[in-house]
Amino acid sequence: TKMKLPGQEEFDISSTCENVATGEPESGPGSGLSPDGPSDTDSRELGVPKDPVLFIQLNELMGWPQALEWRETGRWVLFEEKLEVGAGRWSAPHVPTLALPSLQKLRSLLAEGLVLLDCPARSLLELVEQVTRVELLSPELRGQLQALLLQRPQHLIWTTRTRPCCWSAHPREASHDEEAPMKEQHQNPLRQKLPPGAEAAAVLAGELGSLTQPLGVFVRLRDPVVLGPLTEVPLPSRFFCLLLGPPTLGRGYHEMGRAVAVLLSDRQFQWSVRRASNLHDLLAALDAFLEEVTVLPPGRWDPTARIPPPKCLPSHHKRLASQLREFKGSSVRRRAPAEDRHSHRPHPPSPELRRTGRLFGGFVQDVRRKASWYPSDFLDALHPQCFSAVLYIYLATVTNAITFGGLLGEATNGAQGVLESFLGTAVAGAAFCLMAGQPLTILSSTGPVLVFERLLFSFSRDYSLDYLPFRLWVGIWVAIFCLALVATEASVLVRYFTRFTEEGFCALISLIFIYDAVGKMLSLTRAYPIQRPGSPTYGCFCQFPDPQGNESQWIRTKPKDRDDILSVDLGLVNASLLPPPECAQRGGRPRGPGCHTVPDIAFFSVLLFLTSFLFAMALKHVKSSRFFPSVMRKMLSDFSSVLAILLGCGLDAFLGLATPKLMVPREFKPTLPGRGWLVSPFGANPWWLSVAAALPALLLSILIFMDQQITAVILNRAKYRLQKGAGFHLDLFCVAVLMLLTSALGLPWYVSATVISLAHMDSLRRESRACAPGEPPSFLGIREQRLTGLVVFILTGISIFLAPVLKFIPMPVLYGLFLYMGVAAISSIQFTKRVQLLLMPAKYQPDLLLLRHVPLNRIHLFTGIQLACLGLLWIIKSTPAAIIFPLMLLGLVGVRKAMEWVFSPQELLWLDELMPEKERNISEKGLEPEYSFSGSDSEDSELMYQPKSPEINISVN
Amino acid sequence: TKMKLPGQEEFDISSTCENVATGEPESGPGSGLSPDGPSDTDSRELGVPKDPVLFIQLNELMGWPQALEWRETGRWVLFEEKLEVGAGRWSAPHVPTLALPSLQKLRSLLAEGLVLLDCPARSLLELVEQVTRVELLSPELRGQLQALLLQRPQHLIWTTRTRPCCWSAHPREASHDEEAPMKEQHQNPLRQKLPPGAEAAAVLAGELGSLTQPLGVFVRLRDPVVLGPLTEVPLPSRFFCLLLGPPTLGRGYHEMGRAVAVLLSDRQFQWSVRRASNLHDLLAALDAFLEEVTVLPPGRWDPTARIPPPKCLPSHHKRLASQLREFKGSSVRRRAPAEDRHSHRPHPPSPELRRTGRLFGGFVQDVRRKASWYPSDFLDALHPQCFSAVLYIYLATVTNAITFGGLLGEATNGAQGVLESFLGTAVAGAAFCLMAGQPLTILSSTGPVLVFERLLFSFSRDYSLDYLPFRLWVGIWVAIFCLALVATEASVLVRYFTRFTEEGFCALISLIFIYDAVGKMLSLTRAYPIQRPGSPTYGCFCQFPDPQGNESQWIRTKPKDRDDILSVDLGLVNASLLPPPECAQRGGRPRGPGCHTVPDIAFFSVLLFLTSFLFAMALKHVKSSRFFPSVMRKMLSDFSSVLAILLGCGLDAFLGLATPKLMVPREFKPTLPGRGWLVSPFGANPWWLSVAAALPALLLSILIFMDQQITAVILNRAKYRLQKGAGFHLDLFCVAVLMLLTSALGLPWYVSATVISLAHMDSLRRESRACAPGEPPSFLGIREQRLTGLVVFILTGISIFLAPVLKFIPMPVLYGLFLYMGVAAISSIQFTKRVQLLLMPAKYQPDLLLLRHVPLNRIHLFTGIQLACLGLLWIIKSTPAAIIFPLMLLGLVGVRKAMEWVFSPQELLWLDELMPEKERNISEKGLEPEYSFSGSDSEDSELMYQPKSPEINISVN
Repeated sequence: TKMKLPGQEEFDISSTCENVATGEPESGPGSGLSPDGPSDTDSRELGVPKDPVLFIQLNELMGWPQALEWRETGRWVLFEEKLEVGAGRWSAPHVPTLALPSLQKLRSLLAEGLVLLDCPARSLLELVEQVTRVELLSPELRGQLQALLLQRPQHLIWTTRTRPCCWSAHPREASHDEEAPMKEQHQNPLRQKLPPGAEAAAVLAGELGSLTQPLGVFVRLRDPVVLGPLTEVPLPSRFFCLLLGPPTLGRGYHEMGRAVAVLLSDRQFQWSVRRASNLHDLLAALDAFLEEVTVLPPGRWDPTARIPPPKCLPSHHKRLASQLREFKGSSVRRRAPAEDRHSHRPHPPSPELRRTGRLFGGFVQDVRRKASWYPSDFLDALHPQCFSAVLYIYLATVTNAITFGGLLGEATNGAQGVLESFLGTAVAGAAFCLMAGQPLTILSSTGPVLVFERLLFSFSRDYSLDYLPFRLWVGIWVAIFCLALVATEASVLVRYFTRFTEEGFCALISLIFIYDAVGKMLSLTRAYPIQRPGSPTYGCFCQFPDPQGNESQWIRTKPKDRDDILSVDLGLVNASLLPPPECAQRGGRPRGPGCHTVPDIAFFSVLLFLTSFLFAMALKHVKSSRFFPSVMRKMLSDFSSVLAILLGCGLDAFLGLATPKLMVPREFKPTLPGRGWLVSPFGANPWWLSVAAALPALLLSILIFMDQQITAVILNRAKYRLQKGAGFHLDLFCVAVLMLLTSALGLPWYVSATVISLAHMDSLRRESRACAPGEPPSFLGIREQRLTGLVVFILTGISIFLAPVLKFIPMPVLYGLFLYMGVAAISSIQFTKRVQLLLMPAKYQPDLLLLRHVPLNRIHLFTGIQLACLGLLWIIKSTPAAIIFPLMLLGLVGVRKAMEWVFSPQELLWLDELMPEKERNISEKGLEPEYSFSGSDSEDSELMYQPKSPEINISVN
Repeated sequence: TKMKLPGQEEFDISSTCENVATGEPESGPGSGLSPDGPSDTDSRELGVPKDPVLFIQLNELMGWPQALEWRETGRWVLFEEKLEVGAGRWSAPHVPTLALPSLQKLRSLLAEGLVLLDCPARSLLELVEQVTRVELLSPELRGQLQALLLQRPQHLIWTTRTRPCCWSAHPREASHDEEAPMKEQHQNPLRQKLPPGAEAAAVLAGELGSLTQPLGVFVRLRDPVVLGPLTEVPLPSRFFCLLLGPPTLGRGYHEMGRAVAVLLSDRQFQWSVRRASNLHDLLAALDAFLEEVTVLPPGRWDPTARIPPPKCLPSHHKRLASQLREFKGSSVRRRAPAEDRHSHRPHPPSPELRRTGRLFGGFVQDVRRKASWYPSDFLDALHPQCFSAVLYIYLATVTNAITFGGLLGEATNGAQGVLESFLGTAVAGAAFCLMAGQPLTILSSTGPVLVFERLLFSFSRDYSLDYLPFRLWVGIWVAIFCLALVATEASVLVRYFTRFTEEGFCALISLIFIYDAVGKMLSLTRAYPIQRPGSPTYGCFCQFPDPQGNESQWIRTKPKDRDDILSVDLGLVNASLLPPPECAQRGGRPRGPGCHTVPDIAFFSVLLFLTSFLFAMALKHVKSSRFFPSVMRKMLSDFSSVLAILLGCGLDAFLGLATPKLMVPREFKPTLPGRGWLVSPFGANPWWLSVAAALPALLLSILIFMDQQITAVILNRAKYRLQKGAGFHLDLFCVAVLMLLTSALGLPWYVSATVISLAHMDSLRRESRACAPGEPPSFLGIREQRLTGLVVFILTGISIFLAPVLKFIPMPVLYGLFLYMGVAAISSIQFTKRVQLLLMPAKYQPDLLLLRHVPLNRIHLFTGIQLACLGLLWIIKSTPAAIIFPLMLLGLVGVRKAMEWVFSPQELLWLDELMPEKERNISEKGLEPEYSFSGSDSEDSELMYQPKSPEINISVN
């Protein structure tokens, strides 16, 4: 299997932290940590049982010396939320920062204080009694303290999202007896957010004038108990910490209280302190915490600044692993970084791509694997998100069918047309969705196949061949070749399609999308020419028949050319100035050079095109804005393309101009007159042509294989966390069968379409809801099912009868969406980021991991080679040599192979991936460290676990 | 003077950290720290002489055990730059982070090591000898070490911005004798960046197998010496630190070396260690550093993440001040936060607004103050930036003159027109720039004055008065009233114009800009109607005279209405289809309902409008993008509006459509036929009208005073750091005199225009070049001079003769720029931010300081009141009651005053400013703390010094 490296993000449909480790970690040679190595999906492997989530609350003693009362001023699960006293609201969750002295003071306070581990108290009252049993307290002070501790604290509970319901009422009399949690506590929405089994920790801190010595108490309750109104959420409390002392400088006790809370919110510290058996263990855990803290120097960081939660949290395992490493001593340590780099590598090929060695072995495996998921492939689709996905992909598919239908009709002189395109898309797509290994794939006519078909047609026209029968034989041969590829398990070769090949292919497809969208738009301005001064807008009459019923002459004197028409004396009879549509209605005939120009359409189309493109782009970004509730933002962003279409239609309908609209065929019969639905096997062609067709079929097979499998590789990337596995062999089999079917019916040929399939997956993303405030939602996977695709294609089929509704959609709006899809696809590949680097001065380049490890000129060289390949592909696609285009695609793999002479394996590891045999090589020998003297570059090796560059986006602006 | 609070940013033309403290801190009651209080402009006040800038370099010993060599792996001035070994480049500057253990290990190493303070070494050789004179070294080890220390280290020197020139060549033989710095060292561009007098510090760290014990040496040289090739820049070195030891786990010595470097890059530590007299002082400085560090807990922050430099650095003084406070003990400390909040408050009014009590006293003071700056007002303009400013403001002024000229011509039935507008703008503007107190102000016709003039005209038309003479008397009375206001120093009342008033006014003006731009654009689509199906595009002929020379009838039968024209039989003779322009050329006459429609213009105008608006917006943001060198980005952003205009003109010229273009008058004579340049004093009016004119003049005087002075207050805000002071009295005097002049000549009336003046100042911003890598550039002030304004108005005058050039500018482009100016102005006021808050769920609101201190519903209430006032103003402006509009503006001050009953002073302090008497009140009594028990809210009190909310924008994306 391929090794994935951080910073290698192509189709960034998941914006959150993804983990690179893909399932099943298996140990291999040279992997020092793998046997019990960190796997981010399960923490139990390192022997750490999952502790309950801890909610920590800081109650501060306020109002000294007048009216003492406890008030909740901070709370933690993972990040800190601070009470804004003045504003009466909770701050946004942020990374807690501490001052070092407060941690040190806390340490000494605890060292001298009272530490009760496994305290058997069963209520707040018992706890308070236990806690105040300290020698240094005089009896009356003890009484005073007990009364104080039993006072009901003030909480700020937000019942709705936007406004605090109430400061929990606090009767001044101490509520000793009343231990039941209050109503507001139960209504607290925070409670629903915390996972079941969560425990609480209460930290009480403050300054008390009557104390002469500081008092520090740390309690771990044997059994967690709901401590009455102590915490804002009625959770059973496990920890209790009291930090009181005489008034001091600054907010010493507040800061110490925060320090305890931050300590308890640390998973590692919590783990230790849950298992601590004495004071020594507690202090050791604190010292271990101190060993790991990050220190920011003063003067270059405002200590009062609040750091929003990072998008990527360092994994818990990294910390555990580094501790494990410490224990293993110096010799292991020395080699650690290299091992880290290897630890995820020596996976065997993933099961889908393991060669069985039997005929059709891979195919059979695919069928077996997929069969077990088949029922769930329909049940998993029952989610409203799928509705949006269907709408979006349906519109994209229909647009695609129309565009390619039009192009194919043009290219084949009507042998295929829009109706064939609709029918073929519907039949082939639906069949594929029902049978294929990867039903998220959307089949479509694609640019490369279109190019090939155009060439085939002009060849058969040049040699006066009967096109459809010839094409049938080509299709039969392609199906045979493809079945041979399935039988020989050739799909395992997709492992040679490294990112270089994928990026080249994907960039080409995206560029074709963009080029077509803009080109179609420009062709509209030719169809509806702009009226420059001097253009013949004006001359147009409505001419009626003679009173005798004969059609009268247009003008009396016959003009010779256009200039004559303009300047000759007209002397018209039976003519009026009615505009052409009305004229035709009244039985007249529009006459004159200006009748066929429709003004204003061109610019209005440009406006519609830009509006729908920009609107879809903007809506996609609404998700990360601050406005509106998150549900609404998600809706807006999910339905961005649908909304963009609606906006375009609305604008168009409002102005009521005659813009070109979506034309759906209404009659169900082949476009070419006089042919039936079944293509005859020979027609007018000689018999030997059916054999000769094998030659072009060979080229087409390569093309289909590349086009199909590159898309499949992209869709089945580990980062999408697909659960149901890929089906490379099964997919190719389906394509081959459909090839046969469509050739026989004279329908277009179909393979997987990269851009639409990616858009399909993107619209089916699943994300977790975060439980701890401030924790970023994490990408869970894709809703893998067959239903959305199936419905899309059924709708496409029905669309033949939906003309009355669809005819209101202006074409420029659809072109705008095409542009949007192309731009979205091309901007998501790393290649684009590297092209952008070419324009950035080194000083301003972002802190990509790639840039830390590969010299800039090497990166530019790699990008340059890719650009050159792309340019070459584009040129070949546009020239008569386009017939060898499939071979050129295959050539990309060769270019990539040749690059191994130019670039070092390390560089290729960062810029691309390694090819299978190289990978095997290296996993046997081990990769030599970049520089012998930087062998202990532990910083980078840690980053290797991170899939993304650690760009911290602290500002949420 | 007004107290400014953090988070109060209106016209955010300076994006960097600004300081709120404005000049001259004077002590007042209740200000505990003021006598030697922190003023951010001069550090000497706290007794800290300015130490030289220190460049710190970390050389690491690499290649153990094979081939030892020193390599520079990090460098610091303020932020850290790390060598990316793999990529061979320097990382971007970032906030250094340390691990706590490395600091602790460093402390113990230094405590046991050799500390030489004021070492008299004069060369690297001497230094090395001194340093190796340690007991624990055996003689041969000493020799080995000396040879090692004299080895030339490897530096990565970047000679150009984009690529490293060379790894400084390192001959393997030790270069004992060669102490002269190398050529590359001299060529190092870093050297030019460091200020003169900068010193270097060299930190050498690494692991050496032959050592048995760790070796720590810290040297402060008595006289800084260039230590040969030790540092990459040939600066005299002041500090030298050597940290060597036997190989250990991890990169201990590397981290310790970084710790020393980070310590030395701290100003406070540097200050202490420069003055340290023994080891104890050194360790004390280290401990003081540790006291101040910020600690980030593990698990919630990836320690390997690099934090880009914050936009706002915490000021050095805050740290010093907080230390001072520590010394003052607990009683002072208790009251510190309240004092902080007061420390900047009790300023007396700034000198411009102090009442002298003499007639024309303020005016005389203004003249005196301004006279001393007069020569520099011309010399300071000699900077290329002024060229761009002139272009930008000239175009804005001309557009304004045309727009308002057109509107005025319409409103006064030609009594004033475009020519008067040009002439008046040029004369009044130039005169104002030459004489005024604040020459950055741009005079212009403004919306409120236009509204008033329209009312005045319809009044005099309704009562059949001679308009211009009546207007002359109004002007005379206004001038008299204004002079009276100058005499009585009424301008000191501008202190009652708090932010509430300013925002209301500015929002109104910006909305008028936006409304006008969009309205003018829409009126274009009415002038060039869109051709919907059925519109009469088509019927247009060219009709020639009869052969007899008579004009032939258009059509034979006379049609009765439009429908008849369309449908009646034409039977035309002597007609052709030539388009109207050609037809006219050939002596014909265009006839028919479709002749006057110009198709395609409407949508093309919309496209031009949107293009120029979006392009100007986008270019403005280029400044903060990563692409292109910074010089180019600055150019693109400075000339954004000029480039937008050029793009619009280019597009227009490319398509060659007959879009409406800028029309500049060509003849120099009054628009109203038959009037001379001088308005006769009575005309046809009765004599008593000259007295009665005093009544409307009173209202107009209020309007002029408000319009003029609110703009002046906004322009003279402390945040713009104007050096030459304001001139409120002088400005009003100039306006009064010009009022007289323009009334006499029948030209429009002029006052300061907020939006254009702000754009003017924005285009004249001065920013510092940062010296330390990563340090943000700081806002230095505005190029205060009279020349740009003067040239703008001279050009405006000349424009009357520039018609051949200006006629190529399409009007929609200019409307697009108007929209841009309006949007830029309205989006820069805090009011807009608060309106946005209304749409944000509380959870997603940005971390504004305001939100930390004022409850959300109070903020919304305040915003709501402002919105209501704005709505009321807008309604009044649009109804016949508009004549009392000036009074309503004054009413804003009243509304603000009434708010004191609704909002507490604390809330108003955060939401607005305090009014003068309230301010006096509070500075006498002291503001009560928000909540008695939060008296020690030191965190917030520190934030009070920061003008901006401490939003950290760590991602530079």
